[in-house]
Amino acid sequence: MGTCLGVLTLEGLSVNAYQGKSMQIHLHQTHHTIADFQAINATLLSTLERPGLHVFPELYLTGYPLADLCLTAPFIQTYLGFLKTLNNAVVSMKKNDQTAALVGGLAYTLSDEGVPHSIRNVIFEVIPGQELRELYSKRLLPNYDIFDEQKYFTPGTEPAVWSWQGKRLALMICEDMWASSFHKLDPARDLATLKPFDGVINLSASPYDVAKGDKRRDRARVLSHLLEAPFFYVNRVGGEDEILFDGASFAVNGDETLGMAPQFLAHTLSMELSPKTQYTTPSTLLENTWESLFAPRFSANKSFPRQLQEWSDEECASVALALQFSLQEYAGKNKFKKFLVALSGGMDSALVLTLAKLSLRPGQEIEAVYMPGPYSRSISWDYSLELCQRLGLKLTSLPIKFLHSNVRMSFQNTFPEPFEGLTDENVQSRLRGMLIYTRSNQTGAMVINTSNKSEIAVGYSTQYGDAVGAYSLLGDLYKTEVYRLAVWLNQNHAGLIPAGIIERPPSAELKPNQTDQDSLPPYPRLDAILEGILSFRHRREDLVAMGFSEEEVKRVFHLYSIAEYKRRQFCPIAKIKAKSFGFGYRVPLTKHTGFYQ
Amino acid sequence: MGTCLGVLTLEGLSVNAYQGKSMQIHLHQTHHTIADFQAINATLLSTLERPGLHVFPELYLTGYPLADLCLTAPFIQTYLGFLKTLNNAVVSMKKNDQTAALVGGLAYTLSDEGVPHSIRNVIFEVIPGQELRELYSKRLLPNYDIFDEQKYFTPGTEPAVWSWQGKRLALMICEDMWASSFHKLDPARDLATLKPFDGVINLSASPYDVAKGDKRRDRARVLSHLLEAPFFYVNRVGGEDEILFDGASFAVNGDETLGMAPQFLAHTLSMELSPKTQYTTPSTLLENTWESLFAPRFSANKSFPRQLQEWSDEECASVALALQFSLQEYAGKNKFKKFLVALSGGMDSALVLTLAKLSLRPGQEIEAVYMPGPYSRSISWDYSLELCQRLGLKLTSLPIKFLHSNVRMSFQNTFPEPFEGLTDENVQSRLRGMLIYTRSNQTGAMVINTSNKSEIAVGYSTQYGDAVGAYSLLGDLYKTEVYRLAVWLNQNHAGLIPAGIIERPPSAELKPNQTDQDSLPPYPRLDAILEGILSFRHRREDLVAMGFSEEEVKRVFHLYSIAEYKRRQFCPIAKIKAKSFGFGYRVPLTKHTGFYQ
Repeated sequence: MGTCLGVLTLEGLSVNAYQGKSMQIHLHQTHHTIADFQAINATLLSTLERPGLHVFPELYLTGYPLADLCLTAPFIQTYLGFLKTLNNAVVSMKKNDQTAALVGGLAYTLSDEGVPHSIRNVIFEVIPGQELRELYSKRLLPNYDIFDEQKYFTPGTEPAVWSWQGKRLALMICEDMWASSFHKLDPARDLATLKPFDGVINLSASPYDVAKGDKRRDRARVLSHLLEAPFFYVNRVGGEDEILFDGASFAVNGDETLGMAPQFLAHTLSMELSPKTQYTTPSTLLENTWESLFAPRFSANKSFPRQLQEWSDEECASVALALQFSLQEYAGKNKFKKFLVALSGGMDSALVLTLAKLSLRPGQEIEAVYMPGPYSRSISWDYSLELCQRLGLKLTSLPIKFLHSNVRMSFQNTFPEPFEGLTDENVQSRLRGMLIYTRSNQTGAMVINTSNKSEIAVGYSTQYGDAVGAYSLLGDLYKTEVYRLAVWLNQNHAGLIPAGIIERPPSAELKPNQTDQDSLPPYPRLDAILEGILSFRHRREDLVAMGFSEEEVKRVFHLYSIAEYKRRQFCPIAKIKAKSFGFGYRVPLTKHTGFYQ
Repeated sequence: MGTCLGVLTLEGLSVNAYQGKSMQIHLHQTHHTIADFQAINATLLSTLERPGLHVFPELYLTGYPLADLCLTAPFIQTYLGFLKTLNNAVVSMKKNDQTAALVGGLAYTLSDEGVPHSIRNVIFEVIPGQELRELYSKRLLPNYDIFDEQKYFTPGTEPAVWSWQGKRLALMICEDMWASSFHKLDPARDLATLKPFDGVINLSASPYDVAKGDKRRDRARVLSHLLEAPFFYVNRVGGEDEILFDGASFAVNGDETLGMAPQFLAHTLSMELSPKTQYTTPSTLLENTWESLFAPRFSANKSFPRQLQEWSDEECASVALALQFSLQEYAGKNKFKKFLVALSGGMDSALVLTLAKLSLRPGQEIEAVYMPGPYSRSISWDYSLELCQRLGLKLTSLPIKFLHSNVRMSFQNTFPEPFEGLTDENVQSRLRGMLIYTRSNQTGAMVINTSNKSEIAVGYSTQYGDAVGAYSLLGDLYKTEVYRLAVWLNQNHAGLIPAGIIERPPSAELKPNQTDQDSLPPYPRLDAILEGILSFRHRREDLVAMGFSEEEVKRVFHLYSIAEYKRRQFCPIAKIKAKSFGFGYRVPLTKHTGFYQ
């Protein structure tokens, strides 16, 4: 709700021929599976029964991201058929000048053979009793990291102002609001030449990122000042494989926040189109540079060597919510009702099981399996059992010792090479991978991967062993962040995770008395180096200057660069940061690695 | 060598102020690992000792494709350091107006913090005794399928004509010659306004594709006519994970071919800058449309139902060469000296082993392992043994029967669910995956995957089972193409593959009397449907109109659409077609699949 002072309202009125009539705006952060046209249609049509201006997210009509789907004939024809059906339904509605919707969708230009000549990411006007009408084509197409929009879409060339009920509304789609000096084009500045406006509307599909914080609102405030009108931002909700859209739609007017929708929930944020407030010309537009997008989050206290900035309680809460949401999205949309977690007695699998259990919905089940090997310590079983008891889950033991010794014997009888070292370690991990998937075959359960980002970065895992899984929950969390989240979770959920699991030194238990720190730098140092490499794309000398030793930096670069092949075959990772492994991370396997040294 | 008639030469002279001096042109289709700056430097400098114009491929100085590497500081700094070293070496050479090189490389504009503001894909002029000089920035940046150049590069805005030794040479980089009506820009037509030229030079990094045939030369001929000058095309050689660059550099002059370099071999094609010939204005530029790029190759005889066009002997030879090259590239650049193949007694693994054996180089070894399970037929061992004897390889048997019954027992004692069906089948496959990787751990051998494109498309494989491997040799060959290649190979290599392997019905041997055709349409039909889906992006009704039954098309769409998660975790596939699974194939796992039905 706007709470502007009358005097400022008057200012708005005088400039803007503001007609004093109230207008309800509804920001619908919707939640649909990609290409679920029936549900998309039903939601939109039922919404039109309510008066006011309804705003839906970017590509509401199709879902996002579609990647190659938007090029395939079955998708295109079905979508175009749906558009026609929708159009007919809208046209046949009773004319009504109290209701309109702004809806994101695709506009196709096809060749005679049905091949797309151009695809535009557009805003449709939907008004009862009228034909659907294209109002605006997205101008700034993001093409970095996970974004490939220039691969698929043709950019629009003109800004758009839409008039309805006597109001002038500026239209934008997502990235249009994020131009920086890296771009040749700034849709916001172009709009500024078309003032005055009664409002600015942005339809977004903007991925979640724990460090994003208030960036969207900060930017919207700047644009509200620049364009001298309230700014309405509606964002998609959904988990699409690795990408999480968190909603969190909002409206701001100058420095004031008018309303804020929750994260990760379908929601409608309704308010009146607020009158103008006092705007100040922004001295500079907030920059959305490479640095601001991908800057690593080092500790502010400039510790030496540098450390990762520790997550606040709010950030932990946000990450926990995001991870539970991502799991339920992947499971729900892919029709899994059961989950399966291989517990090791260590931190990662304990956190995965706990998060999964906390996320459970009616009708869902979760199963935990413990697969002890020859070097598993009995305390690992005790901890695992204790965790399961606290979570109210049964724990099943499925030992690999006999299989392991059988494989060993068979190899010793067949091949001359010794059965030792990595061979002996990896076979244990792969037997577990085989067993957990055999169990998954029996029950149809979805296997949740338990790797963390530190392991994935340095290849500290066994391909087809502990690296298996349908979906990775912790693959964007460094090991130190896994601990941080576990501690936070315990503080907020009655200490569900046994303290011993958090306190014991991490170990793969693949040989006697093994700990991770035998072969890796201590995690606080490792994680800081990795963040330097991955997010800031640092060189060795940059990292040495930050207090790390030549040797450890060199070793981490080496481990990182030879683990690419493992990452290539890894499952989708819930993405909670600007820079993650997965689709937005593209590095050739085959290369000379001298430049890392 | 040009073989132009004197009279045509005269015509060239009169139009073009051709000075009658001969100029040697050397097209260097080089072969280096990405970022192997030392080798790249050495090759270039030693080349400059020989007079003439030396032309190197697109991005010769870095390698291609780099993906995110070109954004990372360690790569950028090392490359810029190398450029400086190269420049110093060239400047310090004795001045020499008989020698010049045109070399593909990257040009960076960095922010003060070293962040790339723009990266251009350029041609450098390299002349002994002079500073390196940027001549041209690639204008048409491919951004479809495996190409993401608009993600990384800023396009050039101007055509470039380079004068040397009194000759006017038009410059292009790869895609610049492939504009179509889909593009807003046509660099070739822009160049045409700058005639006359003495030659046109195109530096390329153009991937291999068995169906490409003479497309490059056909296009070059059209442009030679359009620009009224001989056309020199130099292409990269190299296997970069899945992408294969085949070289096959050439020169044409009007309708005449002046020279042709071999495929998949580093080579220098030398010739004189040929004089002009008779050119005819092309009535239309050959179109490089979506259809021509991705058209499926159905049989020309319009059989009903349609069938895939069978490979000619020349195409089989080309594919066999490409696959052997790809294997050696992946192994060589990633430092593998040993290969490991799991033989099943079936067609795919037999072909993989045979191709791998034929590709072997001195110092390399290959090992074959046969892992019989409870449903393996003894004839499978006999065939496998016979194949190994013909190839001069030892075959080791590593039975899974005991492990399999042990897993079954353990599950029957632990869980109430039956151990049968897919559970029982997949465990056999996963035990084999585990064993072959255990063997790989012992010897450091590279496991070659044996899946074919038909299996990958319909998910007829076990994740972490027969789907394991470092590299897939047959993942871009449909099953019918696997057979075709095997038959061709036998005709040309003294029947290495036992006829029985080619003739027996395909079976996974995971249950009694199982054959692939129990659960899949006959391969000739399946493969044609799949090509329709994948390359032509057909709808169900399109395929039904081509003679397939509703039921089988529906079933294939269903199997295809639910197998996405298996493809996501698959290894790199040697890419031999325009449309392949892998990096250039991007389909969300999570979606409503109603549009396929």
